[in-house]
Amino acid sequence: MTETPLDRDALQERLGFSTFIAFMGLEVLSADPAREEVVMRLAMRPEFERGRGSGQWHGGPIAAVIDTVGDYALVMLLGRPLPTINFRVDYLRPAVNTALTATARVRRNGRTVGVVDVDVANDAGALVAIGRASYATG
Amino acid sequence: MTETPLDRDALQERLGFSTFIAFMGLEVLSADPAREEVVMRLAMRPEFERGRGSGQWHGGPIAAVIDTVGDYALVMLLGRPLPTINFRVDYLRPAVNTALTATARVRRNGRTVGVVDVDVANDAGALVAIGRASYATG
Amino acid sequence: MTETPLDRDALQERLGFSTFIAFMGLEVLSADPAREEVVMRLAMRPEFERGRGSGQWHGGPIAAVIDTVGDYALVMLLGRPLPTINFRVDYLRPAVNTALTATARVRRNGRTVGVVDVDVANDAGALVAIGRASYATG
Amino acid sequence: MTETPLDRDALQERLGFSTFIAFMGLEVLSADPAREEVVMRLAMRPEFERGRGSGQWHGGPIAAVIDTVGDYALVMLLGRPLPTINFRVDYLRPAVNTALTATARVRRNGRTVGVVDVDVANDAGALVAIGRASYATG
Repeated sequence: MTETPLDRDALQERLGFSTFIAFMGLEVLSADPAREEVVMRLAMRPEFERGRGSGQWHGGPIAAVIDTVGDYALVMLLGRPLPTINFRVDYLRPAVNTALTATARVRRNGRTVGVVDVDVANDAGALVAIGRASYATG
Repeated sequence: MTETPLDRDALQERLGFSTFIAFMGLEVLSADPAREEVVMRLAMRPEFERGRGSGQWHGGPIAAVIDTVGDYALVMLLGRPLPTINFRVDYLRPAVNTALTATARVRRNGRTVGVVDVDVANDAGALVAIGRASYATG
Repeated sequence: MTETPLDRDALQERLGFSTFIAFMGLEVLSADPAREEVVMRLAMRPEFERGRGSGQWHGGPIAAVIDTVGDYALVMLLGRPLPTINFRVDYLRPAVNTALTATARVRRNGRTVGVVDVDVANDAGALVAIGRASYATG
Repeated sequence: MTETPLDRDALQERLGFSTFIAFMGLEVLSADPAREEVVMRLAMRPEFERGRGSGQWHGGPIAAVIDTVGDYALVMLLGRPLPTINFRVDYLRPAVNTALTATARVRRNGRTVGVVDVDVANDAGALVAIGRASYATG
């Protein structure tokens, strides 16, 4: 397993291969293979609002961010798509009138399963949700 | 706690209060307060595709369906919005060229926490994902 | 994959291979490969009490029951030990002065991952906890 | 909310109030309210072994450690018992011939729900399991 890690630009390009991910509009801020950490930013879209006119993110797009950014932390290391086995998301506080910054850290890059933690923060740096996901690496 | 349960039409109307849920396009197929069960259907949208042209659902919208339909099983019983505490989704097989049918069953409608299971099936009736979610009912 | 499913007695014998499982004292009530369902019973042990003298089960042994009984639903089908990838347990109500009956149903017996739901009930048939676990089947 | 945090000795004393926790034999190594972090150690017991004579921890006691140490991170801050809502455990590698060191960090101490992450390491400092748990703080 001597994969060459993908860099920031390569990850950004790959995000465009998926219609849904391109629709979300994730921007790769950093990709650090040595720390096994990826950071992405997502601006609000009108379609992602919870109550009409509330400016609050619906939890659904936040969960999608966790699934995706967690996946790409392993994609960075392994250079190929990895199906999600399962994930958990805990909502910590409402995300209102803010972009989201998601930081994904690989906790285990195993032979058959990878586990990644994803913290999602608002523009003030406060956590709005945290995720933990497992992916099939075999 | 003598709430009057919401019926199918009332649930369908409430779905429209949220920009994101309206964008998804969920249709309430049935709402059964006695069985504490709600069934909704979601057609594919181009924006929800995984690989471009693959016809496969991205996992993100599937997770959003689980969060939302699970929530509305309790909304049906309690008649008010309920914040998600956390949820888990397990992906069982790819969902390709199909609508999704999500069946949410309340497992516990407690004083402070409600727990709901959501099964998501394809048009052939095979499970594509299952979710388990907890909501703040207090 | 033409494994011969294990029957009730074979599962009961295998439970004894593990010191911890033997210590718990799980009894196999039924093992139904066609329905992919296993039911086990666990009597209270003094060591499993939450508050001293409360007669209430601590959540730890309940979680251990979920992990174990869920695993054995797949062991029944596949005839070999299967490592747990991860699991979730939701506690629904206290379990006091009661044995536990755990019913495990396979939701997906995949090539690399199996997913099992476990319902844990008290002697009155009320749910005290529910679990969802994934195991490495590859 | 002006609770006085509990110190290491007070936490150790409280662990003895529960028959199960006392049976496990958890030792509080540190309790740091400012960092919202608790560290405990658990030696192997013969009853906690997976395969007979294997020296490997069964996953059940590891899950129980996560539930308990996570809980006590919030008990330290709030000074009272807190029921577990749910938790997830991911097993990362086998724990063999080792004690366990569990580090619990509060991610959110909310008005109704608290969320805690628990890392469980072996004597070599390698992670064997990670947990994420939510507790009712209301």
